[in-house]
Amino acid sequence: MKTHHRLLLTGAAGGLGTALRERLKANCTVLRLSDKSAFGEALPGEEIVLADLANAVEVDAMVAGCDAIVHLGGISVEAPFEAILQANILGVYHLYEAARKHGVKRVVFASSNHVTGFYKQSETITADHPARPDSYYGVSKAFGEDFSRFYFDRYGIETACVRIGSSFPEPRDRRMLATWLSFDDLHRLISACLSTPVLGHSIVFGMSDNAVTWWDNSRARHIGYVPQDSSDVFREAVFARTPAPDLNDPAAIYQGGGFVKATP
Amino acid sequence: MKTHHRLLLTGAAGGLGTALRERLKANCTVLRLSDKSAFGEALPGEEIVLADLANAVEVDAMVAGCDAIVHLGGISVEAPFEAILQANILGVYHLYEAARKHGVKRVVFASSNHVTGFYKQSETITADHPARPDSYYGVSKAFGEDFSRFYFDRYGIETACVRIGSSFPEPRDRRMLATWLSFDDLHRLISACLSTPVLGHSIVFGMSDNAVTWWDNSRARHIGYVPQDSSDVFREAVFARTPAPDLNDPAAIYQGGGFVKATP
Amino acid sequence: MKTHHRLLLTGAAGGLGTALRERLKANCTVLRLSDKSAFGEALPGEEIVLADLANAVEVDAMVAGCDAIVHLGGISVEAPFEAILQANILGVYHLYEAARKHGVKRVVFASSNHVTGFYKQSETITADHPARPDSYYGVSKAFGEDFSRFYFDRYGIETACVRIGSSFPEPRDRRMLATWLSFDDLHRLISACLSTPVLGHSIVFGMSDNAVTWWDNSRARHIGYVPQDSSDVFREAVFARTPAPDLNDPAAIYQGGGFVKATP
Amino acid sequence: MKTHHRLLLTGAAGGLGTALRERLKANCTVLRLSDKSAFGEALPGEEIVLADLANAVEVDAMVAGCDAIVHLGGISVEAPFEAILQANILGVYHLYEAARKHGVKRVVFASSNHVTGFYKQSETITADHPARPDSYYGVSKAFGEDFSRFYFDRYGIETACVRIGSSFPEPRDRRMLATWLSFDDLHRLISACLSTPVLGHSIVFGMSDNAVTWWDNSRARHIGYVPQDSSDVFREAVFARTPAPDLNDPAAIYQGGGFVKATP
Amino acid sequence: MKTHHRLLLTGAAGGLGTALRERLKANCTVLRLSDKSAFGEALPGEEIVLADLANAVEVDAMVAGCDAIVHLGGISVEAPFEAILQANILGVYHLYEAARKHGVKRVVFASSNHVTGFYKQSETITADHPARPDSYYGVSKAFGEDFSRFYFDRYGIETACVRIGSSFPEPRDRRMLATWLSFDDLHRLISACLSTPVLGHSIVFGMSDNAVTWWDNSRARHIGYVPQDSSDVFREAVFARTPAPDLNDPAAIYQGGGFVKATP
Amino acid sequence: MKTHHRLLLTGAAGGLGTALRERLKANCTVLRLSDKSAFGEALPGEEIVLADLANAVEVDAMVAGCDAIVHLGGISVEAPFEAILQANILGVYHLYEAARKHGVKRVVFASSNHVTGFYKQSETITADHPARPDSYYGVSKAFGEDFSRFYFDRYGIETACVRIGSSFPEPRDRRMLATWLSFDDLHRLISACLSTPVLGHSIVFGMSDNAVTWWDNSRARHIGYVPQDSSDVFREAVFARTPAPDLNDPAAIYQGGGFVKATP
Repeated sequence: MKTHHRLLLTGAAGGLGTALRERLKANCTVLRLSDKSAFGEALPGEEIVLADLANAVEVDAMVAGCDAIVHLGGISVEAPFEAILQANILGVYHLYEAARKHGVKRVVFASSNHVTGFYKQSETITADHPARPDSYYGVSKAFGEDFSRFYFDRYGIETACVRIGSSFPEPRDRRMLATWLSFDDLHRLISACLSTPVLGHSIVFGMSDNAVTWWDNSRARHIGYVPQDSSDVFREAVFARTPAPDLNDPAAIYQGGGFVKATP
Repeated sequence: MKTHHRLLLTGAAGGLGTALRERLKANCTVLRLSDKSAFGEALPGEEIVLADLANAVEVDAMVAGCDAIVHLGGISVEAPFEAILQANILGVYHLYEAARKHGVKRVVFASSNHVTGFYKQSETITADHPARPDSYYGVSKAFGEDFSRFYFDRYGIETACVRIGSSFPEPRDRRMLATWLSFDDLHRLISACLSTPVLGHSIVFGMSDNAVTWWDNSRARHIGYVPQDSSDVFREAVFARTPAPDLNDPAAIYQGGGFVKATP
Repeated sequence: MKTHHRLLLTGAAGGLGTALRERLKANCTVLRLSDKSAFGEALPGEEIVLADLANAVEVDAMVAGCDAIVHLGGISVEAPFEAILQANILGVYHLYEAARKHGVKRVVFASSNHVTGFYKQSETITADHPARPDSYYGVSKAFGEDFSRFYFDRYGIETACVRIGSSFPEPRDRRMLATWLSFDDLHRLISACLSTPVLGHSIVFGMSDNAVTWWDNSRARHIGYVPQDSSDVFREAVFARTPAPDLNDPAAIYQGGGFVKATP
Repeated sequence: MKTHHRLLLTGAAGGLGTALRERLKANCTVLRLSDKSAFGEALPGEEIVLADLANAVEVDAMVAGCDAIVHLGGISVEAPFEAILQANILGVYHLYEAARKHGVKRVVFASSNHVTGFYKQSETITADHPARPDSYYGVSKAFGEDFSRFYFDRYGIETACVRIGSSFPEPRDRRMLATWLSFDDLHRLISACLSTPVLGHSIVFGMSDNAVTWWDNSRARHIGYVPQDSSDVFREAVFARTPAPDLNDPAAIYQGGGFVKATP
Repeated sequence: MKTHHRLLLTGAAGGLGTALRERLKANCTVLRLSDKSAFGEALPGEEIVLADLANAVEVDAMVAGCDAIVHLGGISVEAPFEAILQANILGVYHLYEAARKHGVKRVVFASSNHVTGFYKQSETITADHPARPDSYYGVSKAFGEDFSRFYFDRYGIETACVRIGSSFPEPRDRRMLATWLSFDDLHRLISACLSTPVLGHSIVFGMSDNAVTWWDNSRARHIGYVPQDSSDVFREAVFARTPAPDLNDPAAIYQGGGFVKATP
Repeated sequence: MKTHHRLLLTGAAGGLGTALRERLKANCTVLRLSDKSAFGEALPGEEIVLADLANAVEVDAMVAGCDAIVHLGGISVEAPFEAILQANILGVYHLYEAARKHGVKRVVFASSNHVTGFYKQSETITADHPARPDSYYGVSKAFGEDFSRFYFDRYGIETACVRIGSSFPEPRDRRMLATWLSFDDLHRLISACLSTPVLGHSIVFGMSDNAVTWWDNSRARHIGYVPQDSSDVFREAVFARTPAPDLNDPAAIYQGGGFVKATP
């Protein structure tokens, strides 16, 4: 359903942005694409507004005229803190300030499982478990969740914080049997966030209907996300090409996987 | 399955009563229908006993000889308190007193989502969340839940309090995407309540398998209700014919919808 | 502190009303006393307005002009349902309607431990545990709690539901070692309810600082009640004059004591 | 998937052992079968090592060389305490000591719903609810759960404690509508325990996808068990051949059924 | 108060037995002392019945004629499993069987903080947290808690499982600032267990009113234990004579202290 | 007790820094004071190292050689986001990086009640409730809590996040009856954080022993904080000089008080 007229997609040139570009046209009349650097021409039904998230003026122009935002922009891996500070912390401030000024009332914010990466792989967590970030990146996503909560409580801007697991064409390793989110399910989840009548400020884990999982989305039922893919069809292949985990390795102990020992 | 010989259906002339009249014949040998005023002739397999719930003698006669009760009777919308007092408060007392005297051991009580109507549409609640009624009607249903709990703890009469959402042929507005309960699912739910080996005193939310929902029935798994319909097939049509909710309107903020600001 | 100008005390001629009559003068300039039947003359600082709670006009006159209400009125023991319906259900409706019409914004409502009388004496419960009333009386108090919640959510009238344990000069039996509430602590609790800056709608168990207890007031800390008496000083005397409980007797198993098997 | 080279199945001559014998060959290269007494010849892909669980030396030899263990051995019904002490308590100690010495890192331990048999049939419990065993047998299984937790926390041996409901070809009575676990689902569950990348120490209820259930496996999602059978197809037949439960009978009140009143 | 006529104290010759011997005379008319081996003569108000807990006949004689039991007997440190099996597992069975046969209805069972020794020293736990024993000894105490729960649910024998922290004349190290239980508070706690009107089956942590603590006794308020001593007066002295903990040492990480790495 | 040799106090020139300067000398041999700008001479037992928190080199020098840190520095009121970003976000990164490099293992971090300022004044919250910051300032303190959690999970640096209420010589308004923290209690709390044997990463609300409170410190008992002051002695005076709150004002509805509507 085309629930919005002009929908902004940030981080449009990245992996997930590319996967969503075609799919999100179903949700809007005009899809505005944005990224930091030029990435080609707008196709029919699209428009492109480049912006550096650390630049308030550019972000303001990027947001002006939009009805809703899918915010994938910023840094999505571990990186030096100063870089993350600009893109993911200052950038979030700029984005929400622009939303506030221009009356945008709904945002889908790409958060991450790395907000809670220091929980164990044998634990089930909900959105109410306290943050245990596993990286500067994870801390910056926790910041985004708290910041958007503030703008909801203060200004009524609704946000879905989607803690994306591992969104790739298929699961790459055994950990991703739990964390995998197909591109189609990612789109289904974003569509649900955009179209549910009342969103509020919500945290939802972004995963497909995998048999193995560590996350409980029962506090986000009002969003209406129903995944239709599953990592299970890839299970045997993944087992065949990957070694058994070393259970003494923090990357196997904790949900964050390799992030829990990454250095930027 | 015909789990009971003579099953009493109160409120048989109302909307839900009419929808259940044919369906409930599958659950019993004799379906006794009751309402306040005459509503036609008994069909094969039926019998009719009229009763005013505020009249103890009539209620006693209505209950005598039955094996189980599906209690839809009383007022099911907001109304002046005095009217609700008679039908839904005094009436519940009369009904359970009759059940106690005549040895009826299982009741399906039509409670309502308006018992918890002042929770927010972005919250998920369980049967253990404290009541937050949104109307005199909602308060009267909270009373029925508490009263039946008392008769279970004191006299062992089992009751399922079914907090019916919105049971109509199809969802009428966006709120009902969450609250809709098809007539067939309503019947499935009542059948489950009538046939589960041990019911105890249980509260269960009456909703179909809708993608968007605010209610968690995990405390009522022993009932064995498995919905098979969903509001989702109506989603696009509902969006097409209804406006987006005003998120500053209490009717959009709270689960009870329009009831939270209704005056009798 | 005199936090209110004119304070209404209903049930003023009863046991607790008599105990509070002198004490509550410290909380107001004018103490308006009310009961169903005449009980003597007003003393200095007092005024008397008689009212039958089942009579809307009399209740309206009783409430008019008051700034806050301490509602002890109605039936406080097990009784036939019809009598309880008039005094404790219809009466609560009348009282809150009068409060709404006359702009009274704070009520202290005498609820009862019999709202949760069917919990076990070896359980600890909070205000969030679902009601398990042990009597018609207990059901009526659960009704009052739900009704006042509705009037808070709808109209902003703050209420403290005080689930009074056993308020007597001293504990009469072994059960009261847990449930005892001294008159002074009752007054401290009501004073806290009247003077805390923000009350909201709150449920608080009314008990002294007894060593043995079944109730956890941790959700009511914003009220600021600090009990200063304890049943412990009476412990040896109570043991000396009372028999050991029969642990197969429902009156010893359940918190409600004798109420769980009382017949009106 | 053949996730292990040599897999030990204890209790191989019992009812469940027999059901699993053929099925578990899919999980390993060599299936080592063990029981207390001789039960025939090894078939291709099998080897047999008899052992009395009460005999440390025999248990050690049974475990030596294995990569993982499915421990069904011991007594699986109510019995005199001294017998249970040998088989289920001393036996568990012997088994885990052997696993520790020989470097076995994963065990599937056949626990039982009788660990929590004194919860009510109208309650839903999770793995975090405290044990309420209903028999010496149930106490011994609670012991095994605690013992394996100790060996996980101390030595890193992963265990899945599978609280098996009622695993038979089909449900025998109305209670088993809730507790039934088909042989295929039992095998699916054990396979999931053997193959999930990270198991930790986990408790999981062993039941099929029954409509009526008392158990919530949401804390064991990391195991990835997806049942595919259901007792529901047997429902009408079970009702037809069994009487309605007597709700005053402890065997109908409590989840443990007949065990709650069994004497060894 | 002398709440019982003949009170049995097992383990009477041990450290805590000795500390309680004199104190418990206040609770009974006759104090029956028992231990495995002879430990001197009975003083006035005492009687001595020796018994090996592994010997059913001796335990039966020890229990016969008593009204209540304080069970400190058995092994109270880490030890080979076979020894613990005899004293703490078989012994508990013998004790409760004797209690059942002779109609003893209340037991105070010396459990241990080592039932939950694998929780962290920065965690607060309640009696509802699942067991995480740190030793064979801890597992055996978890067994005793489960076994006594069974005998309560089945036979109505009330038990207080007292998870004793560190009961010594004064705290010996920094860990004991949290776990210390003075002898007087131990006696207060046992007295509360013996005299509370309704005990049920309860788990209570045995600690004094220490500032630093890891344990929350809020589920045991019905016992009425009010500690009056505190480790704080020893704090400076303990700091002066002990080194700072090595936070990488499991003995400092986990509540069980040295037990988490003890070998029998 | 002097638990540390060289203790760093940042924000030493501010209100709380000034109050703590003399008191903290009891906790260390050398008290290193730091602030952004010169604030006078070091007294005996003190040394001064100025540093701008936004300057990594200066922060490194400030931390070098210290054994523990009490971090009050940064902005402690609502301010433009860019300023808060430098002092409270980048500053926290600099501080913990310096701590990591120099082997400082314990930090007391001045967090704030404004991390949870959008909870209601009639709610009781614990440290596990999700953040609901009420200001840029509150968001920045939530960031510090998450960041220090990351450095604990990754590097083992222990932090106490002290959510300071209102620390002034005496409560200034009715809200502070709940939030007040006397200077002496602030010092007691910091001393407890510095001296508890095992701190972990903990969140603790900083309040005196006020009768009215919104915060539950039961998850921080291992810290051993025992407040000894109370706002209650100021209650009458505060009531006398301040108006009753307007319950429709967000500053009275929410715990954050005026911060929930402050603009920088």
